[in-house]
Amino acid sequence: MSTTLAILGGGQLGRMLALAAAPLGVRVRALDPNPDACAGDVCELIVGAFDDPLSLERLTRDAQAVTYEFENIPQTALDRVRDAGFTLRPGPRSIAVASDRLLEKQHLASIGIAVAPFAPVHDHASLTQAVETIGTPAILKTRTGGYDGKGQAPVDEPSAAEDAWSAIDRRPAVLEQRLSFERELAAVVCRSQRGDTTSYPLTQTRHERGILVRAHAPAQTDQQTSTTADSWAATLADSLEHVGTLALELFDTPAGLIANEFAPRVHNSGHWTIDGCRCSQFENHVRAVLGWPLGATQQGRPSVMLNLIGAAPDPDAIAAIPGAAAHLYRKAPKPGRKIGHVTFTADTLHKAVAAADKAEPALRPCE
Amino acid sequence: MSTTLAILGGGQLGRMLALAAAPLGVRVRALDPNPDACAGDVCELIVGAFDDPLSLERLTRDAQAVTYEFENIPQTALDRVRDAGFTLRPGPRSIAVASDRLLEKQHLASIGIAVAPFAPVHDHASLTQAVETIGTPAILKTRTGGYDGKGQAPVDEPSAAEDAWSAIDRRPAVLEQRLSFERELAAVVCRSQRGDTTSYPLTQTRHERGILVRAHAPAQTDQQTSTTADSWAATLADSLEHVGTLALELFDTPAGLIANEFAPRVHNSGHWTIDGCRCSQFENHVRAVLGWPLGATQQGRPSVMLNLIGAAPDPDAIAAIPGAAAHLYRKAPKPGRKIGHVTFTADTLHKAVAAADKAEPALRPCE
Repeated sequence: MSTTLAILGGGQLGRMLALAAAPLGVRVRALDPNPDACAGDVCELIVGAFDDPLSLERLTRDAQAVTYEFENIPQTALDRVRDAGFTLRPGPRSIAVASDRLLEKQHLASIGIAVAPFAPVHDHASLTQAVETIGTPAILKTRTGGYDGKGQAPVDEPSAAEDAWSAIDRRPAVLEQRLSFERELAAVVCRSQRGDTTSYPLTQTRHERGILVRAHAPAQTDQQTSTTADSWAATLADSLEHVGTLALELFDTPAGLIANEFAPRVHNSGHWTIDGCRCSQFENHVRAVLGWPLGATQQGRPSVMLNLIGAAPDPDAIAAIPGAAAHLYRKAPKPGRKIGHVTFTADTLHKAVAAADKAEPALRPCE
Repeated sequence: MSTTLAILGGGQLGRMLALAAAPLGVRVRALDPNPDACAGDVCELIVGAFDDPLSLERLTRDAQAVTYEFENIPQTALDRVRDAGFTLRPGPRSIAVASDRLLEKQHLASIGIAVAPFAPVHDHASLTQAVETIGTPAILKTRTGGYDGKGQAPVDEPSAAEDAWSAIDRRPAVLEQRLSFERELAAVVCRSQRGDTTSYPLTQTRHERGILVRAHAPAQTDQQTSTTADSWAATLADSLEHVGTLALELFDTPAGLIANEFAPRVHNSGHWTIDGCRCSQFENHVRAVLGWPLGATQQGRPSVMLNLIGAAPDPDAIAAIPGAAAHLYRKAPKPGRKIGHVTFTADTLHKAVAAADKAEPALRPCE
């Protein structure tokens, strides 16, 4: 009786999946081109290119399921995993739609989820047309490959459009209306192979320079907002026949909720669930991709998560902060790189926020 | 900035130590003669004998601390670790006293902790003398090497003494008065290098055939019992200059608390802390042996832990039990072997007990 889960990618998401899988009696194997990939501390690591046939063969040998920690997977890798007889979970439609911002916006709109006005850009004429249709301020984003604010450029006025496009290397892009919003939210859900969907409490997030820096749960919104967000995320997961965790990022605007984008995988906005819920987004993802029943997503305690970005104090200094649950990824510090997170839980969200606020200066040594 | 913790032993305790260490940014390396040692799933495993110089050298290379998951460590291993410049934590006195039942009883008594009347047995004359002094019913236990009820034999009446001693291979032993008790308890504490001690809520345990089968926390006792148990465990840890987690097993008798034995390490009676407390016995042990500050031991939710002994249902069947937090060790099933545990937490102990009671038949397929 041995269950093996294969993961494309050995970064921090793979690492946290492996840590969640182990208590379930699941052995994890991750594939990553980087021999220092941080998942390698806590599971078997195959070092190789994502599209290398031998590495993929070693990754998937005796595996019961294959999943990934990032959605920009080379097509050859997708093909090889499929040819080896596996359905790469969460599933081909989730990957296809999420890896292309244009398809993503079109898909969200097509299933009744509100998105900001958008238009495709692929040449000079379409750029001009897009600026005319969408207006400014807007934001130009590459269709593929962007993350953590990369591959984006602001278009504050029509005359700035050309420079913005140059800034993203004149790649195929989407121009989106830039919205003012009161808060950013994320709906994290998990869908099983049977098609059951379970929602985590709605999360409030804060980004700086395109990078998530903080998450609060539960979000301080009205019940209607929370119900809509959950329902959208569940509808999205169903529409993609998604199996596993999915995070839908939203703007709470004066005109109501607007979807920004989604991640077809475990996501930074759900990291607090490790400490805040019986069954984390990672554990539920593992259960889902293996075809197991999902676990309880009820929140035990209100939670605040702070990302450690670029640098962090020594682990023993973090250990000295009262109530801080450390999650260090053992990645080399580098500007803009997420190298860990810390979660504060308390009886009330107010107390968790107070603990996080108090600890924040010590946790951000370089900022 | 890399912290490495070395562990003598790669069984389930080493595995759970490694799982607790990873989020702290600590890399773990375990040494075990068994190439299938279950900690190897989640940390680096050195396969070798505990007293093999090369294996010990590989184990401790670049390590910041060396600890163990079992106290019956060969003397040559202890010597080599010391000669390599490490203090094997929790510390030499803890190991010396805990690995010999006679020293253990004498030590407990010497620091004011009540123990059952006992007498040493090493030959026919001392056996006769012990039975005369202690009376029957009594229990004969080997001085060294016993665990999970092994190395013990009952002495129901004086005439049974010789057979009991033969049953434990006429090894040096201790004869103890057999007590009637209302409940079994365990006080789990952790002591830092600075000498701070923190206590987990008192745990109520149940053994069958010498093996722990169930633990409830908090124990249903009066405040005085709980205070005494905590104080004894802290006194014991101080007296040994212990660094790390320690579990003191107790009998709650009509005449008051009586100490049975202690484990100078993380212990089965504290497994519920993974799910029930902010900072588990494993995380605090890691913090302590590295010289870091200890973390919060307050209990989040009342907890019941059931051991999976000898056999267990398939992992997906365990995943289907509402509220069950699975901890499977990936050890081959074998009669009497602990292969996992499951924790139930709830708002009240009553509800946690009810959930555990309901799940128990499904979790014990062979009994």
